[in-house]
Amino acid sequence: MSNTAITVAHGDGIGPEIMEATLHIIKEAGARIDIDTIEIGEKVYLSGNSAGIAPESWDSLRRTKVFLKAPITTPQGGGFKSLNVTVRKTLGLYANIRPCVSYHPFVRTKHPVMDLVIVRENEEDTYAGIEYRQTDMVELCLKLISRPGCEKIVRYAFEYAVKNNRKKVTAFMKDNIMKQTDGLFHKVFDEIAAEYPGIEADHWIVDIGAAKMADTPENFDVIVMQNLYGDILSDVAAQIAGSVGLAGSANIGEHISMFEAIHGSAPRRAGQNLANPSGLFLGAILMLVHINQPDVAELAHNAWLRTIEDGIHTYDIFKEGTSKEKVGTKEFAAAVVKRIGQKPETLKAVKYKKTEEIAVADRKPIYSIREPQKKELVGVDVFVGWWNGEFYGAGNAIGAEIEKLNGDGLKLVMVSNRGTKVYPKGLPDTFCVDHWRCRFMSEKENALVSHKQIINLLSRFNDAGLDFIKTEHLYNFDGKPGYSLGQGQ
Amino acid sequence: MSNTAITVAHGDGIGPEIMEATLHIIKEAGARIDIDTIEIGEKVYLSGNSAGIAPESWDSLRRTKVFLKAPITTPQGGGFKSLNVTVRKTLGLYANIRPCVSYHPFVRTKHPVMDLVIVRENEEDTYAGIEYRQTDMVELCLKLISRPGCEKIVRYAFEYAVKNNRKKVTAFMKDNIMKQTDGLFHKVFDEIAAEYPGIEADHWIVDIGAAKMADTPENFDVIVMQNLYGDILSDVAAQIAGSVGLAGSANIGEHISMFEAIHGSAPRRAGQNLANPSGLFLGAILMLVHINQPDVAELAHNAWLRTIEDGIHTYDIFKEGTSKEKVGTKEFAAAVVKRIGQKPETLKAVKYKKTEEIAVADRKPIYSIREPQKKELVGVDVFVGWWNGEFYGAGNAIGAEIEKLNGDGLKLVMVSNRGTKVYPKGLPDTFCVDHWRCRFMSEKENALVSHKQIINLLSRFNDAGLDFIKTEHLYNFDGKPGYSLGQGQ
Repeated sequence: MSNTAITVAHGDGIGPEIMEATLHIIKEAGARIDIDTIEIGEKVYLSGNSAGIAPESWDSLRRTKVFLKAPITTPQGGGFKSLNVTVRKTLGLYANIRPCVSYHPFVRTKHPVMDLVIVRENEEDTYAGIEYRQTDMVELCLKLISRPGCEKIVRYAFEYAVKNNRKKVTAFMKDNIMKQTDGLFHKVFDEIAAEYPGIEADHWIVDIGAAKMADTPENFDVIVMQNLYGDILSDVAAQIAGSVGLAGSANIGEHISMFEAIHGSAPRRAGQNLANPSGLFLGAILMLVHINQPDVAELAHNAWLRTIEDGIHTYDIFKEGTSKEKVGTKEFAAAVVKRIGQKPETLKAVKYKKTEEIAVADRKPIYSIREPQKKELVGVDVFVGWWNGEFYGAGNAIGAEIEKLNGDGLKLVMVSNRGTKVYPKGLPDTFCVDHWRCRFMSEKENALVSHKQIINLLSRFNDAGLDFIKTEHLYNFDGKPGYSLGQGQ
Repeated sequence: MSNTAITVAHGDGIGPEIMEATLHIIKEAGARIDIDTIEIGEKVYLSGNSAGIAPESWDSLRRTKVFLKAPITTPQGGGFKSLNVTVRKTLGLYANIRPCVSYHPFVRTKHPVMDLVIVRENEEDTYAGIEYRQTDMVELCLKLISRPGCEKIVRYAFEYAVKNNRKKVTAFMKDNIMKQTDGLFHKVFDEIAAEYPGIEADHWIVDIGAAKMADTPENFDVIVMQNLYGDILSDVAAQIAGSVGLAGSANIGEHISMFEAIHGSAPRRAGQNLANPSGLFLGAILMLVHINQPDVAELAHNAWLRTIEDGIHTYDIFKEGTSKEKVGTKEFAAAVVKRIGQKPETLKAVKYKKTEEIAVADRKPIYSIREPQKKELVGVDVFVGWWNGEFYGAGNAIGAEIEKLNGDGLKLVMVSNRGTKVYPKGLPDTFCVDHWRCRFMSEKENALVSHKQIINLLSRFNDAGLDFIKTEHLYNFDGKPGYSLGQGQ
């Protein structure tokens, strides 16, 4: 069998040590890999590359399509960009996979029965980094959720469940409040779940789901979430499983994938042969399965489980009574290598399948191409920066002023402040900031509006000396409104 | 001492029973209250009022300014609006307060030492409910964070800490990603923390903070958060403390405040004398302190603690071995009343201060009035719905088309898709949906732009037959950019 080329970066801080330990173990377990080493992180940043990765390194990633990455240090200040965010975004690594497992009774945990996997969307949500300040008082961030984005992540979660013999996929979302964005995620989840009758599917409102997961993680199997919820709750799950130092993760793209530990570069522990290589090692296990070397993954992972079980522990998980021997990074790796061929006796041994053993009938594309819906422009929200010095009761004043801009077939139907209607018939108790939304629609009920009418309306705002700061068009799709009502509208 | 008028709603499901039990206990403890009863919930919804509260009930709330509310049932379907959201938004209840306490060894918990309070912002964030669908593929939700909103909630958290003898206030936010919105929250936190040298202040990135809170809640005291984070993590904290059935909460406004249980109306348990009234009761304790009857709050709360300690438990927390007697709603209330005057022996007794005993020097207003900064328009992001059938590599095609609209002093500087730059010099690996952001700035470096230029630009989009769907103006404030760069820009 020919070797698989992979790209490896040794990173900063404890990175080089734990990478060396990880590669040592998997090679001894028989990994059939050819390593292409690239440099990323602190040195690259400080050499004047604000992205922390040299242009030629992208070529290696595009060639091997597999990236095993040690943690890096991003220098403080100076406009350095998060390398992880850059790599994820640029290469379209849309799925972040994080198995969170407890190793009771060998590693201290409040949750002895825990073996769940978080599948987190990795490209969208408020993490797209689109932010604006347009008034003295208000900052705005856009939360974007796309149908292909939802389809990709939800399908990945179900495919992962099938391949890894998981029984259930749970979705968390907040669609009782965010009816459109989170509603889309929920809808896509229901659609795709129906294609996998062998996998149980359920869903929770994220607050309740998070509470249940934090309290009784044993009731969960695979959990799929949008970016923000997944970010928070994957850290919660990793932490309560025992230690963030024991978790690896995969970032999966359509073409390229990245494997890593979830912890940072811990510069204070660097160079002392202290660090626990387990997080990166478990990332490498995910990689071995991904590159279709399940035999190697199984040998290495079971040897690791046996080492943990034998109480051979690095300082971070060492505990008098449960642990037997406190070891350094190298000694830990040697202990795992010594156990290659052995299986754990108390913990559950792992078993991985070759890709070709997994029968997948009628596989759908990871995102659908759909017929466009009939899209009709029916109005516009014009946002205005306006301030008369009053936090209460200014709705009528601005409403009356904005109403003067009616004409050319458009009329003001509502002014809201932070989502709550304040005109017409606003309540005096509503606290208002200097950021007003003015909703205009056609004078005639259910009539369409043109882009030209909106441009003319903006001209009237401008002529009146009003500082319009943003617009949001209101569209119907197949006759159904694509916009929410104001609270109280 | 004269009585305080309060407004009471008995609600739906188990609401009437637990309200009766709660009022019985606090009256027996000497509560000096005059009750004005209003009807809210299911009956009101089904009588045709989509808000679930009759117009005249607002008069009662405005008169008493204190609302003790039992849980209600919102009928399924039919466009009924969340009463809680309506009341919070309309009356400006900006702070949600949730003490999360474990009662080890009397109530089962994995976290025996836990006594924290979550202070959640209640009006802003993605919960303002402003959503748009403007292309076939993309849904958008606005996250609004205002300076006065941050000031109000952060100051409340510190004031609460002072009044309740708390030692530390911790902020959770995600300002490494959302540098502007969450950055504003962080900045305000630092500013206000400096005014309270007697209170320790610290902060965590919300994912790490959440992980720590879920694992070792004993390390936290008061935690202040934006709406979404607070929603998720207050449920986590309540759940891991023991039971969501044992938590009350306050919703504090500048003028009016509301007190309730955090659980729902549990219709299946209704009318059977089964429900645990403790959540609503603990909400009433927060109310008694709020209306300056700390003596009554102390008597009632200590009697309740003693009852829990004596193992007199309703079905939901009853456990063979730890509990002594399984009782119904009424019997539980009677047991608490019987213990009025007693204090707990193992659990910590509570102590509350009268408002006038709390010396607060130099109290600042709950939000500041600041000098407006110098605001300069420097560009615009025009968002376009556009689709050529390709998920990869379309950036150059749309970029070239949009560049033709340069002129009148404006030029295209970037096109991005879901926040990632795709033109000029986009990467072929970036997955693109049908929602494009086109950033225009002045042809001349650092020159200002006029509203008129933006209107003219939109006309050029329109003449070119391009479907512009939204705009976001780019402003500098005191010379500092109020907009984020595209990923890769």
